[in-house]
Amino acid sequence: MKPVRAAVLLITMLLAGCVVTVNDPVLVGKDRVTMWQNKLVIAHRGASGYLPEHTLEAKAMAYAQGSHFIEQDLVMTQDDQVVVLHDHHLDTVTNVRDVFPDRARADGRYYVIDFTLEELRTLAVTERFNVSDGAKTAVFEQRFPLEKSSFRIATFAEEIELVQGLNQSTGRSVGIYPEIKSPAFHRGEGKDISAAVLKVLKTYGYDEQQDSVFLQCFDPTELQRIRGELLPAMNMTVPLVQLLGTGPEFRAALTPAGMQMVASYADGIGPSMQLIVSRGSVAGKLQITNLVELAHDQGLVVHPYTFRRDLLPAYADDYAQLLEIFLDDIGVDGVFTDFPDLTVEYIESNL
Amino acid sequence: MKPVRAAVLLITMLLAGCVVTVNDPVLVGKDRVTMWQNKLVIAHRGASGYLPEHTLEAKAMAYAQGSHFIEQDLVMTQDDQVVVLHDHHLDTVTNVRDVFPDRARADGRYYVIDFTLEELRTLAVTERFNVSDGAKTAVFEQRFPLEKSSFRIATFAEEIELVQGLNQSTGRSVGIYPEIKSPAFHRGEGKDISAAVLKVLKTYGYDEQQDSVFLQCFDPTELQRIRGELLPAMNMTVPLVQLLGTGPEFRAALTPAGMQMVASYADGIGPSMQLIVSRGSVAGKLQITNLVELAHDQGLVVHPYTFRRDLLPAYADDYAQLLEIFLDDIGVDGVFTDFPDLTVEYIESNL
Repeated sequence: MKPVRAAVLLITMLLAGCVVTVNDPVLVGKDRVTMWQNKLVIAHRGASGYLPEHTLEAKAMAYAQGSHFIEQDLVMTQDDQVVVLHDHHLDTVTNVRDVFPDRARADGRYYVIDFTLEELRTLAVTERFNVSDGAKTAVFEQRFPLEKSSFRIATFAEEIELVQGLNQSTGRSVGIYPEIKSPAFHRGEGKDISAAVLKVLKTYGYDEQQDSVFLQCFDPTELQRIRGELLPAMNMTVPLVQLLGTGPEFRAALTPAGMQMVASYADGIGPSMQLIVSRGSVAGKLQITNLVELAHDQGLVVHPYTFRRDLLPAYADDYAQLLEIFLDDIGVDGVFTDFPDLTVEYIESNL
Repeated sequence: MKPVRAAVLLITMLLAGCVVTVNDPVLVGKDRVTMWQNKLVIAHRGASGYLPEHTLEAKAMAYAQGSHFIEQDLVMTQDDQVVVLHDHHLDTVTNVRDVFPDRARADGRYYVIDFTLEELRTLAVTERFNVSDGAKTAVFEQRFPLEKSSFRIATFAEEIELVQGLNQSTGRSVGIYPEIKSPAFHRGEGKDISAAVLKVLKTYGYDEQQDSVFLQCFDPTELQRIRGELLPAMNMTVPLVQLLGTGPEFRAALTPAGMQMVASYADGIGPSMQLIVSRGSVAGKLQITNLVELAHDQGLVVHPYTFRRDLLPAYADDYAQLLEIFLDDIGVDGVFTDFPDLTVEYIESNL
């Protein structure tokens, strides 16, 4: 389901006074907010400020930098494997055009779902790029250089084994923060990605509310299906996070009634930082919304995205100030960041 | 050349009063010892206390943990590629037995040099193991679990690109510390591994004395050939390190004359820690040799191996005490360690 369609459904349900019935207990109020005692550093696609996003190398680095949770964006292959990639296209982070030149769809894009895992294994992953007039330019030019070294696409299972193996060798307890990408797209292609993701989670022991996992999705209908149907059917109770974007389709959720609705099926929200501090804000004169208060009132944790040293909003002079605004002044419960090292350092020094 | 044969030659040369003539300037005395101002943390095969040795993931982790140099052990493939593996056998760190069951030599071992890079790419790398009665057991059982996640063999070039790419994205200047493995074995197989390694180094800009590289080898004859012939021919002057083991073949080097000989072609030594603090030492009663003094008198840096939290000598109560003995009390210039994080932390807190 596209965000717009999902939001229409959400609005319809709200207007109808409908609240989803769930079969597993959801912690509410302060219990939920305080369950994770510290501010959480969530490595956004890994230590992606330093290494190509969603590679195992970027995850190992994020782990070493002290991240509390490591994010996995999840999509499905032609042969029903769950792999870790930011979206269901391959052409902005791999050499798929060179390796499989005739496998694009009519829109010119290369879809993960059109390839088997074995085929995907042959692709080289690189730092994210744009293509203009046939030339590639890095999205973040100061980051890891394009097309250097050797990186591959990993499966969700391989990434979990990396994190769990590191938990053994270091004695730490770092969690995972998977996102189900484009469930409606996958359904249209005949795949139930949520069921596939939950199966992997259960296999690896992430099946209870207190396990070190948050399962996130932009699609409210899919999250309700997960909470209301899939989790009970699999005897699982993992915490869910409703992602919120800046588009009009998410506006309904930004009200007391909308947030109550979200709290009926989710345990937290993952909003764009612009939904908390408005884009028009300037230094010393921040326009702060009531979103965090609304969410906390419903017992939802708040983990905004994306905190980047090299892409600061206009109102922040530097990265530490940006963290101060969100973590100290506003009081969010954690942040998605491309720079886990700087974020851990800030928290250890200031909080 | 085997260590024994190399040592016989070294002894012969020493008895003959022979000192190798070198064509490039070698810094001597305190200039050499103080060129690297701080105590160096050299990641031994990567952050191998936490992830399978010599994988790019282990190198990324070592980088993130603040290592100053990252080690690469180098061997050659059938098709003349230089790859990063501890030795020229595959069977204790990969699934080669399962993938290529009929490719062992008469001694039952699987040799890197019998495989092409493309074949090696198909192997899964795992934590180091022993095989007993057909069952695999981890050499270090508390480390990363056997046969989990997905790791591969990398080329020397790919690893350099990882380090240099990270140097770009972090702004740091981490060096490389390659070791030429078994040059005599490679020569017997028709390969000049030293020439191949130097070619890669030069390609990636490591060609001068002050570049962030140390090139190490156990074989003194090969190091002399590198210093006397190969480097001048390639217009290179990278620093060389003579590795020293505990076998009788290295005894000649542990004398003033022997060390003077080493200093004629090398810039540092990499001795087993047992050559500095004798194995029979007990807590509070250390038997410290004069090796570090001998080496420093000749202007050689001293980087002993291998410092492991999970394999302490009997005389050290814990890892910090081991570091204190070598770095503070004895004054070595750096250490090879499986635990870069703990070593960096110790140095930052105590030195």
